[in-house]
This record gives sequence, structure tokens and C-alpha cells, in this order.
Amino acid sequence: MSSLRHDDSMMQQLQQVTPSCSSPSVLLPLTHLRAARCGSESAQKQEVRGNKYLFRMRSIVSFYICYMLCLCLGLACVVCVCVWNAHWRHGFAWNGSTLEFNWHPVLMVTGLIVLYGNGAVLYRVPLTWGQNKLPWKLLHAVLMLLALVLSIIGLCAVFDFHNANKTPNLYSLHSWIGIAASALFALQWVMGMAGFLLPCSPTWLRKLLKPIHVWMGGSILILSIAACISGINEKLFFVLTKPQPYSKLPAEALLGNSLGVLIVAFGLVVLKILSNHEWKRPDSVPDGVDYTPVLQEECE
Amino acid sequence: MSSLRHDDSMMQQLQQVTPSCSSPSVLLPLTHLRAARCGSESAQKQEVRGNKYLFRMRSIVSFYICYMLCLCLGLACVVCVCVWNAHWRHGFAWNGSTLEFNWHPVLMVTGLIVLYGNGAVLYRVPLTWGQNKLPWKLLHAVLMLLALVLSIIGLCAVFDFHNANKTPNLYSLHSWIGIAASALFALQWVMGMAGFLLPCSPTWLRKLLKPIHVWMGGSILILSIAACISGINEKLFFVLTKPQPYSKLPAEALLGNSLGVLIVAFGLVVLKILSNHEWKRPDSVPDGVDYTPVLQEECE
Repeated sequence: MSSLRHDDSMMQQLQQVTPSCSSPSVLLPLTHLRAARCGSESAQKQEVRGNKYLFRMRSIVSFYICYMLCLCLGLACVVCVCVWNAHWRHGFAWNGSTLEFNWHPVLMVTGLIVLYGNGAVLYRVPLTWGQNKLPWKLLHAVLMLLALVLSIIGLCAVFDFHNANKTPNLYSLHSWIGIAASALFALQWVMGMAGFLLPCSPTWLRKLLKPIHVWMGGSILILSIAACISGINEKLFFVLTKPQPYSKLPAEALLGNSLGVLIVAFGLVVLKILSNHEWKRPDSVPDGVDYTPVLQEECE
Repeated sequence: MSSLRHDDSMMQQLQQVTPSCSSPSVLLPLTHLRAARCGSESAQKQEVRGNKYLFRMRSIVSFYICYMLCLCLGLACVVCVCVWNAHWRHGFAWNGSTLEFNWHPVLMVTGLIVLYGNGAVLYRVPLTWGQNKLPWKLLHAVLMLLALVLSIIGLCAVFDFHNANKTPNLYSLHSWIGIAASALFALQWVMGMAGFLLPCSPTWLRKLLKPIHVWMGGSILILSIAACISGINEKLFFVLTKPQPYSKLPAEALLGNSLGVLIVAFGLVVLKILSNHEWKRPDSVPDGVDYTPVLQEECE
């Protein structure tokens, strides 16, 4: 983005320092010199335009590489957590047994990590910039609501399992970090809904909320990653005992550890996409107004 | 930063659209009108300048509030981890016993979280912008080297403890994430040293490395936070057994959980400081050249 601004200011400077080539008040002996100068300026401008175009194309290609990586890592996380709990932890039920607990990792990883991360990077997809923002806002809100609902069901599973087995709730560091992530996520969703989707919310409130919403979004993902890593680590220590203890790295331990590595990799890719200013949806496009797509703009 | 740029462009636009007030070719009947117009333009410019000054002052004050929070949280993390291991885990030794293990959390939290985080935000302190960058680069490198050395000693403590007790190394998810954070940190330090401190490293290499260095810096901190949270959680489950199990939240559990919360809060404040573009050291200041401090610039 800074480089784009730099290119724009270069264009402005070029326009300011050179007198107009179409001015009629030109002395005849200087005509040839002037024509040659105008030609070189035009070539210079074209070069700047070409560099700008190349830069934007490179930025879009690198975004889609990151985005594909994000989608693949997200899918790998969901597959891994499902295989782990369906195959190695003997499947699912809702009867207070460990089979009910198995919903917890599956729903938290799918909701609080994968759906959440994909919902967060939605506005960064350049394809969405050429269109009215409102449908993408609604999709962002719906994806986040789905993520929140899955997380809440995931929390219900573990509370129900603990209560059925007379185990206290919310004592471990994993549970403190996890409940903080879920509570902040619920607050973030309500604040986002009230601040950005309700038509009556004033512009000054949206401007005030936006940086808080973006920062809270990243922080919730970091909390979720820390909660998932500590949860998987704890679970593997609990269930992998003799004759195949965790320390001997049986197949289930390798799968669980790999799931943790995939979650961290997914989170880092999402945070990379969120932090790159070149990939931000341009602020200049007001809600409800069509925005000229990057490629169309270049073809004018 | 974007707002600063906006102010600058407003100033440029003002300068471009108004003819010079000191031009001698002014018709006499228009003198009074002209003087009134110039007075109003001057007032407009002063207002823009005043807004710019206020914006920068507010940005500096909010930085120092965040920075103080970062220092206080860092100190609280070190105090908590030391009290936990010195008082509740019975102190330190280097003899293969659990007392040797106690160095591990103390050194990892102090090195890989607190010193690392403080080293990372050093360039963001506005006080350092008014000076030659080289001494601050050296201080950044020294702080990071100290953090790396402490982390390596912390790793030696746990490897030595495991070897003395015939416990396998590097099997848990906590250890995978922790060793990845430490290895990336070592790689980051060597790359940073070679790329930014060696006088022979070319400018194009520095420009190429800088965004990678910044992104790797944030990623290492996130890995370290995940490793610390999972490590503290695991340790509390191991040591807090009957008659005062972890699930009853005895005093040690509260201290350990609080340490985890403090680590996450410290990490989020550091990442907030790193991600705020208003608080970045201006790029336009070349190495070895004095930069006019913000406040001095405003007083000119």
C-alpha cells in the first residue's frame, strides 16, 4: 500500500514539474526538442504505470497463494481433529461419557479456529472489493455466528461431560484461556453486529470501533490458538498411558501433535493475511457503492 | 500514520490551489480583499498544523501508556514465575533433580517472552527516533542475544533433567511448539545479525529481509506464548495431585494460572505495539543520520 502511495506521488510529481505538452505557446525552434522531451516524459509515465500494475498484480498473486494455504491448512485441521476423535477416541455421543467430550475438540477447532480464521480474512479477498460491501458484511457476520454457535456447543459438551462425571469446571489454565477467548468472541460478535450492521449506528461510532474490532479479532485468534495447544497437550497426557504412553510417541500422539502444528500454522497464515496492509480492502469505498475492481481499473 | 499523510497532502493541496501572498503583481483595488483571503488561508494552515500536532501528541501519549503497561506486565510475569518456582516448587539447583527443572520455566518466561518482547518494541519508543539508529540496533541485538542465551540455558535445564531421569525428550506438543519457537528465534537472530548489522550487507538484502524479520518476530512470540501456556498447564496437572489437586484450585494453581494470563496479556500488548503503524520508527531516516525529533520538528 505504501508503495502504491509512493507510485501515486511519483505520478503527481511528474505532472507538477513538467509543463503541459499540448500548450500552444511554444517557440518554433524548440518544437523538435519539446517533442522529444514530451516523448520521454510519456515513456516515463508509462513505465511508472507499468511498475504500479506489476506491483498490484504481484500483491494479488501473493495474496491468493497465502489464501490457498489458509484454506488447505484449515481443511487439514478439521480432517485431523475429526479423524483423531472419530477413530482414535472412538467417536461421538451426547450421553455424558467421554464420547460426548469428543465433540469438544472437534467443535472448538472447527469453530474457534478454522471458521473464525476464514471469516476474519473474508474482506481481504480482492474479488470482494469490486462489489457492494453489504453482502460480504452479512457473510462475515453469518460465518462468525456459525463459528460462535459451534464453539458454544463445544463448550456445552465439555461442561455436560464434567457435570456428569462430577469433575469441577473452569479450573485449569487451558479452560481460563479458552473461556476468555469464547467470551471475548461473543462480545466481539455483539459489538460488531451493533456497530457495523445496524443501520442506525452512526459513522463516528463505526470509525471508533473499527481499530478495536480488528485488534480484538487478532487477539481472540491468539487466545484460541493458545487454548487449543494446551488442550491437545493436556488430552494426550491424560489418554496416552501405559502400555503406549505419550512419551513413546505412538501414532495417536503423532496425529495430535501434528494437529497442534497445523493449528499454529493456520493461525500464523491468517494473522499474516490480516496484518498485511497491501491486502486491506480500500477504505475509500463507501458502503453500498460499487468499487472499480483492481484489474478493470488497470485496463481503463 | 495514514492520518499524518492525509494532513501532509492537505497542506500540499492548500499550497497548490492558492497563489502566493507575497506576489508583487497585485491590483491595488484588490489589496484589502487579498489580505483578508491570505489571513484566512494562514488561519486554515495553522489549524491544519495544530490538528497535526495534536494528533501526534495523542499518538505519543497512547504509545507510552501501552509501553508502561508492557513494562509492568513483563515485570509481573518475571516476579510470578520466580515466586512460583522459588517458593512453591522449592527453589533451584543444577543437579538433575526437579530443582534443576525449575530453571526451565523461569528462564523461558524471562528470555523467550519478557526480554524478547521488550527487545522487539525497542524501535517503537519515540525517544529513540531523534537519534542515530546504530546504538539502538546494537541494543536490540544485545537484548535479543541475552533473551536467546537465557532460553538456551532454560532448554539445557529441561534436557539435563530429562536425561538424568531417563525421560524421553521432545515428545509432547508443548515441546514441539517450544523447540520450534527457540529454533526460529536462533535463526532470526543470525539472519538479523547478518542482514542488518554487518556493514557489508547490501541495501537490497535489508529491504528484502525487513518484512520477513518483522513477521517472523511476531510469529515467534505467538509460538512462545502457546508453548508457555501449554507448559504451565502441563506442569500444574503433574504437580498438583491429592490432597490438593489442581481441580480444587489451591494457591499454587491460582498463581500458575495468573502467570499464564499475565503472559498472554503481555504478548497481546507487545503485538499491539508492533502492529500499530502510527508507532513505527519513520523509514525515511537513513542509518547513521540524525533524525529531527517529533517535538523539536513541531517547535520550528
